Formats: sequence, C-alpha cells, structure tokens
Amino acid sequence: MEAQTGANIPGLMPLPEPVLRRLPWYLAYIATLRTQRVQYVSTTRIASALELAPSLIAKDLSVLGIKGKTRIGYQVDTLEETLREYLGFSKRHNAAMCGAGSLGSALLADNGLLRYGLDVVAAFDVSKDVVGRTVGTVKVSHISELPKEVKRKEISIGILAVPVEEAQKVADILVNAGVRAIWNFTPTRIRVPEHAVVSNTSIYSHLAVMYNRLSILENQ
Amino acid sequence: MEAQTGANIPGLMPLPEPVLRRLPWYLAYIATLRTQRVQYVSTTRIASALELAPSLIAKDLSVLGIKGKTRIGYQVDTLEETLREYLGFSKRHNAAMCGAGSLGSALLADNGLLRYGLDVVAAFDVSKDVVGRTVGTVKVSHISELPKEVKRKEISIGILAVPVEEAQKVADILVNAGVRAIWNFTPTRIRVPEHAVVSNTSIYSHLAVMYNRLSILENQ
Repeated sequence: MEAQTGANIPGLMPLPEPVLRRLPWYLAYIATLRTQRVQYVSTTRIASALELAPSLIAKDLSVLGIKGKTRIGYQVDTLEETLREYLGFSKRHNAAMCGAGSLGSALLADNGLLRYGLDVVAAFDVSKDVVGRTVGTVKVSHISELPKEVKRKEISIGILAVPVEEAQKVADILVNAGVRAIWNFTPTRIRVPEHAVVSNTSIYSHLAVMYNRLSILENQ
Repeated sequence: MEAQTGANIPGLMPLPEPVLRRLPWYLAYIATLRTQRVQYVSTTRIASALELAPSLIAKDLSVLGIKGKTRIGYQVDTLEETLREYLGFSKRHNAAMCGAGSLGSALLADNGLLRYGLDVVAAFDVSKDVVGRTVGTVKVSHISELPKEVKRKEISIGILAVPVEEAQKVADILVNAGVRAIWNFTPTRIRVPEHAVVSNTSIYSHLAVMYNRLSILENQ
C-alpha cells in the first residue's frame, strides 16, 4: 500500500507526461460544461467530446483519487477543482522572464498565464533599449540584478525567451541563483543539473511538424 | 529504390515527430556556429553540445540527404540552409490568427514567427472592442469575413487562440473555408477531417508538466 501514499496530494506523484498532457484537455472541457451549468458528466460524454477511449479517461481520472458514480458520473464542480489543484494551477508560482524581446514581451502581455498559476513578477534583459521599461505590469531589470531579485521575490521558475546563443548562459545564471525549474521557449536544448527541471516549449518546432504534415497532404 | 523517391524534396516524407522536433535543435546550434564563423562541424561536436548520441544525429541528418565528410564533418552553411529548407522555414506560409485577445495579440506581436516562415496576414475576432483595431501589423476583421479573406489572401494555416468553448466552432469555420492546417493554442482537443492537420501547442499543459516535476523535486 505504501506506493499509493500521496496519491491525493497534488503533484506528489511523478505522473507520466502523456497523462499530464491529457488532464488539461479534461479540465478545459469540464470548465466549458460548468459555464453551461451542467452538473454531472460521464466518462462516455467526455470521451465522445474529446475523441478518446472512455476507459483511458476513467484510468487517468482515477489517478486523482476521484471516482465517478455509476449512472451519474462525475460531479462537474468537484472534478474541475480537483483537476486545477492537481495540475498546480490553483497555486501561485513566482516566475522571472528572461529576455524581454519580441517573444518575451508577448508572453508578458499574456495574462492567461496568471490563470494557470504563473505570476511573472520580474523580467530581465541586457539591452539598453529595454532595461528600465515596463512591459505588461513588470519593470525590466538588467540581468545582473537577477540573483538578488530571485531571492527577494522568491522566484522558483525562470522563463527563457533569450536569443539562442545566450540560452545556456542564462539558464546557468538562473540555476545558480536558486531557480529550480526552467521553461525554455528557445529552439535550443539546454542542460541543467539534476536538482532542476526543464520544460521545453519550442513553438517553432511545432511549426516544423505542421509544415511537414501539410506538405504531405498537399502532395497527396 | 522507389521508397527513397522524394528524400531530397523538403517536407515530402512523413518524418517521425521525434526527428522533426530534434531537427530545430540542430538548426539552432548550427546557426550559432555560423555567427561564430565556424565552417565545419562534426556529429561529435553537435552531440556534445546538445547531449545526444552522435549516432542519432548522423541518422537524423542522413534523412536530409546530407552526409558529413570523414574527419571534416558537415559544412555549416550548407547544413543550416538544408535544415531551414527541410523544416519549411524558408518558404512563406500565409496564416490567419483567430482570436485577438491576450494570447492572440501576444502572438501577433511576435515577429519571430516570420523568420520561421509564418506570415500572419489576417486576424479575426467577434468582440466589438477588438474588431477594426490594428494589432502588430494586421487589422482585426470580424470572423464572418474569414471565408472571403482566406481565399483572397491564400491562407493555408489557421491559428486558434480563441476561448476554449469556441475552439471547435472556429476550427470548423477554418476547415470549411479551405484551410488545411490548424495550429491550436487552446488547451482543448479539436477534431478536423482527414484532409486537414492539427498541431497542438498547449502552453498551459507544458506548465502542468513543469509544476508536477518541480513539486516532486521540492518534496524529495
């Protein structure tokens, strides 16, 4: 039974990435149902809306310690809350934006991040044109201020939106300052020590996958 | 030999997604080398910079029809150009942004997309506050103009940055207008007919993966 300890404590289990990527789909669908004042939902209904197997959904949701009731299904409110909590979206995480160029500024302007628990409380750059300016609600500081600010503002996540050739250097600065998670938006691979994690969101590599699939379609 | 036809024609082969996701890493690294005026690079050097196996890199690159020379390696300029072409980044693709809210506007402001071949030539929304405004370099039109604009501007890619509950509806409008590829930034799953492709970039689900990994670290 020991292996099941922590199953109900959000985020304590190293969930497989495919499961972690499906849970937000469920959350998005459930949230839509809530706005439509639906009270209960079955795995069959979720399955048909998302085109997944009902058994897969039941298995994924059982990880959260929630079980549906026979014939009634899951309570929409409870399921949404549990999913949000489990995914870490209801907790506040302080983050630092590194790079306030085109992509960094774009992300700073996206207030959607806050709804998913990410509070960007600081931004850093090296360019004279940007340092001192306010982007979104955050004033951009020089990168040399980073270590001090990370401690003062209890920042746990660094967002990398710097030029490719600076990515590793800035990642090292973040890790040395005590940041333990890096959200990498650069199209390069970065290395971090074992006590830190990296999540890659290379939007341009998603573009490459799409172009490839599209050109196959067009040549069929 | 027939199975190899088209191996040198960019994008004609349905490459496995893991390969397509690694190629941009190589491109980013090679581009950095070019700015440092490096002329040749070996798989060993790429491998050590990106922490991958040299044999994997050689295998991935052989797909492009480029072979390195013994002892010298790959010519940096040629490799960069071939990678860009193969990934579809050197071709211009016309795209429509659907949803000019927080995330949509952020993406419109990111001029990095154009460097990767994506030219956002139109934007659509339904909100009176947004329609008629210019975001980035594009004027936002009402969604009812979409079919006409898709034809007039030869748009092949639709970017979905609408609220979750509108995602499927807008995807249907895009597909009916003749768009064959949808870049989905909403956290929900959308369905398209077989003659269309979807690429999902759910940045919030990447956040969930990162939160999970981080909380495991913090509880170790």
